[in-house]
Amino acid sequence: MTANRRAPAAVEGRFSYPGLDRVIHEKARLGIMTSLVAQPAGLSFTDLKELCGLTDGNLNRHLEVLREAGLVVIHKEQGGRRLRTVCRVTKRGQGHFLEYLAELERVVAAAAQAAQAAKDGTQSVLRRLSPA
Amino acid sequence: MTANRRAPAAVEGRFSYPGLDRVIHEKARLGIMTSLVAQPAGLSFTDLKELCGLTDGNLNRHLEVLREAGLVVIHKEQGGRRLRTVCRVTKRGQGHFLEYLAELERVVAAAAQAAQAAKDGTQSVLRRLSPA
Repeated sequence: MTANRRAPAAVEGRFSYPGLDRVIHEKARLGIMTSLVAQPAGLSFTDLKELCGLTDGNLNRHLEVLREAGLVVIHKEQGGRRLRTVCRVTKRGQGHFLEYLAELERVVAAAAQAAQAAKDGTQSVLRRLSPA
Repeated sequence: MTANRRAPAAVEGRFSYPGLDRVIHEKARLGIMTSLVAQPAGLSFTDLKELCGLTDGNLNRHLEVLREAGLVVIHKEQGGRRLRTVCRVTKRGQGHFLEYLAELERVVAAAAQAAQAAKDGTQSVLRRLSPA
């Protein structure tokens, strides 16, 4: 490949989005984190399952990924005559979520700009676009 | 599980994000689609690889997912003394991308609201939050 066909070095990796942490970006986990961030005191497994439209198995699997990353804690507490499972976002989880959200906002803005520029017939917009 | 511990029916599935098409939402493919939407005339495989910070193998794999969904087309064209691979977003791809983007904007707004409400100490914010 000759140099004139390569993207300018300045744009290399421009759309690689290193700030979009895959642990949070995955659609089901994004729903779980948004639900939990809205309820710092925690949500029951059942409420979370319904809010996120997930099966028991899927919610368990995704919560485990979030727990391993230190973003949520899961514990049992007495609720009437039985134990119920309660999930809560950690301080670290709140921080990571806010960072992710800030990056996602930049990604959305850049993508909207890309779409608008294409609509306007502007061709060489890559130099102006940056999620960072 | 008794009724009083369940989420109100009105919020069921509120954070399931059916509009976030997984074909586009995946981080690498989001970068590919944003790059291509910005350049309706197409981008070479090499430029795309550098813009998105992907290996040949990864870019090939993700392009195939997008091609199978009808969102991009891939063809060879003469570039100097050799053929080069050019990728281009389809009309369907542009439409899907704009729909995805609109949904993502709603998700970001709802998540930001959730985070802000939690920060303000508001506990029962779920009823007011909706990405839809």
